[in-house]
Amino acid sequence: MVLNIGLLGLGTVGTGVVEIINERKDAIKKSTGKSINIKRVMVNNLNKKRDIDISEISLTEDFEDILNDTEIDVIVEVTGDLESSYKYIIEGLNAGKHVVTANKAVVSKYLGEFSSLAAEKNLAFLYEASVGGGIPVIKPLREQIELNEINKVQGILNGTCNYILTRMINEDKDYREVLKVAQELGYAEADPTADVEGHDTLRKLRILSTLGLQGKVTEEDILLYGIGSINSLDIKNIKKMDSTVKLIAEAKKFGDGFTAIVQPTIVKNNNYFANVNMAYNSVAFEGDHVGELKFYGPGAGKLPTANAVLNDVLDIGNNSYRKGNPLKDESLKNLNEEIKGKYYLRVSYINNETNGTLKELANQVLCEDEDMAIITNDMKLSKINSILSGLNLSKDRYFLAKIME
Amino acid sequence: MVLNIGLLGLGTVGTGVVEIINERKDAIKKSTGKSINIKRVMVNNLNKKRDIDISEISLTEDFEDILNDTEIDVIVEVTGDLESSYKYIIEGLNAGKHVVTANKAVVSKYLGEFSSLAAEKNLAFLYEASVGGGIPVIKPLREQIELNEINKVQGILNGTCNYILTRMINEDKDYREVLKVAQELGYAEADPTADVEGHDTLRKLRILSTLGLQGKVTEEDILLYGIGSINSLDIKNIKKMDSTVKLIAEAKKFGDGFTAIVQPTIVKNNNYFANVNMAYNSVAFEGDHVGELKFYGPGAGKLPTANAVLNDVLDIGNNSYRKGNPLKDESLKNLNEEIKGKYYLRVSYINNETNGTLKELANQVLCEDEDMAIITNDMKLSKINSILSGLNLSKDRYFLAKIME
Repeated sequence: MVLNIGLLGLGTVGTGVVEIINERKDAIKKSTGKSINIKRVMVNNLNKKRDIDISEISLTEDFEDILNDTEIDVIVEVTGDLESSYKYIIEGLNAGKHVVTANKAVVSKYLGEFSSLAAEKNLAFLYEASVGGGIPVIKPLREQIELNEINKVQGILNGTCNYILTRMINEDKDYREVLKVAQELGYAEADPTADVEGHDTLRKLRILSTLGLQGKVTEEDILLYGIGSINSLDIKNIKKMDSTVKLIAEAKKFGDGFTAIVQPTIVKNNNYFANVNMAYNSVAFEGDHVGELKFYGPGAGKLPTANAVLNDVLDIGNNSYRKGNPLKDESLKNLNEEIKGKYYLRVSYINNETNGTLKELANQVLCEDEDMAIITNDMKLSKINSILSGLNLSKDRYFLAKIME
Repeated sequence: MVLNIGLLGLGTVGTGVVEIINERKDAIKKSTGKSINIKRVMVNNLNKKRDIDISEISLTEDFEDILNDTEIDVIVEVTGDLESSYKYIIEGLNAGKHVVTANKAVVSKYLGEFSSLAAEKNLAFLYEASVGGGIPVIKPLREQIELNEINKVQGILNGTCNYILTRMINEDKDYREVLKVAQELGYAEADPTADVEGHDTLRKLRILSTLGLQGKVTEEDILLYGIGSINSLDIKNIKKMDSTVKLIAEAKKFGDGFTAIVQPTIVKNNNYFANVNMAYNSVAFEGDHVGELKFYGPGAGKLPTANAVLNDVLDIGNNSYRKGNPLKDESLKNLNEEIKGKYYLRVSYINNETNGTLKELANQVLCEDEDMAIITNDMKLSKINSILSGLNLSKDRYFLAKIME
């Protein structure tokens, strides 16, 4: 039996997919009796020079060539583009083809629609690579929801942020300096906004929480705080607390609803998440029977991501994925207003009024010069936010981080 | 569709299986369209009082009642007994029934035979719960071998040892004292040998390495060092090294063969494994494409283990497991003789001869009173062992631990 793939995109991940298939083709055939074949690849530019040998691959610039090829069983979508990938996925499923994607933006935005269309057509819609890079986490989560109420999903989900924060902590370096190195090494994009402001992490949390909490959690349901305003003083203060800082996404059941937030989080050095460093990611979830599970691995990268894509493809080839729409359409009550805790707050260019206001919030004052840093009382985040609004601070003048219990 | 289960054993795990099915039955039916039904349960004693309501369950003391019940699709073996479970599994597969087991001893000993018989009969033989309790690790490893060469499998695989070591480190308590508490709390058996001497860990490593390294790794292929002789002085020394100690199992490809060992291992406090504490387990493996993956969760316990068993059962009900025999029959060259590293070695009741011998090995002498502790040079473990043999020390007079790089 041959499983024919139509590959959309031959960038980093697409190239990895071709490389791994070339290398493992024979082994896969031997152990499963199935051949994986890349039937055709859609690219933006037929004439672009490629890093890999494409002499045996049929390229096209036209999606229709893949859509109308009745021999193609699976569309592997690794373009990274949002709106056109939506079209590819919908049209692919409607044409009776299974779909695998690594594109977190499109999965986050249209997960419900894709899942129900795939179920209706008795096809697979799989997206392991969209969260946590190479880490198998969507599949175990999708399985555990059958046996458990999932109370919490949590994780370090963005390699760029984690790389920057790790180097700032380990090398006492400034944010801009580390960001520049990260860009030079290819760990951060030229425009790093989606990563450092947490949009990428938010999308992944939207995927994990919709699946895990089994109800509607939209992108708009998630509070978002990035790492863009962290500075060397913050790093110094955090290290004095015998701690480190991570951008952590967390959604959990709370009362008769849920809370969902992405925020810089200060974790003690002996906390599990403190040892998830550099471009590694970790995803945790908690079920009422299985307890707390944590998964750790490379959060990005050509081969790990391509490997996750191909594990989905093999699940289709072996018919070894769980069928049906795993999502529930129930609406859940957003209780983000109730989020509370102790927070680290640093404000720069302090005046008397700001100093006084911060002191009222403070359980502990860490420093009060031109920059002032405090640890707040245990209080509602919404209260801190309304006080910050009152102070009318621009976003780059303060840094707020949750202190993990 | 109804999936009928014949459950062998109604001890801790068996009770958990019944409890979770009772609770999730309707949810599973709703989401998968499949009913899970416990058709019959084999117990040792029909008249024993049970903690759960068994009024609707049909009990038997006779395995034949399950074997000959043609409506039973799956045998779930959670007896814990070695030789009779071998018989149940073989006879079950031969009778055309899928088999799920949580029994690491029988899986470790007969994995090859079970796997090939199941493949031959086109049946499932699944054993997720045999390693790492509730952590899904057998399934991801079984999947990754299709796409990767696995170079290493590693883990903290025994909750009892890890519980004892964690409390010794955290509370500066003596081994015997902590063991006693562990026994009272049910974390350790009355006879703790299988746990503290590492036999249980060894069996789990045999399972992981046979699957991961894709060749023959028998129980006899694995070097074994337990934690039974660790004392308060060792704990004090290890803490001074800014480290902690774990019983770590590791098998890896080495040269044209492999090494496999279970040994107390000293890990720096900022190492990932240092934060795997109490009865938690962690399993790591490394593939050439996916990179390093680590899985963390409850290493034992009624509900986590039952949950792992039931995830296998659901894979059978949904036909969503990978088919075929995942094992290769190739023999691998055992290169344990080549294992080397830096070791911590403490010997008690030192005399002049012993003192001199240890000093020759030492890169650093940590203390030399009645008890002497050293850190060795980077050297072969086989050399250390032959020197220890020469000193003719009884097993309880010394403690040897690898220092993780």
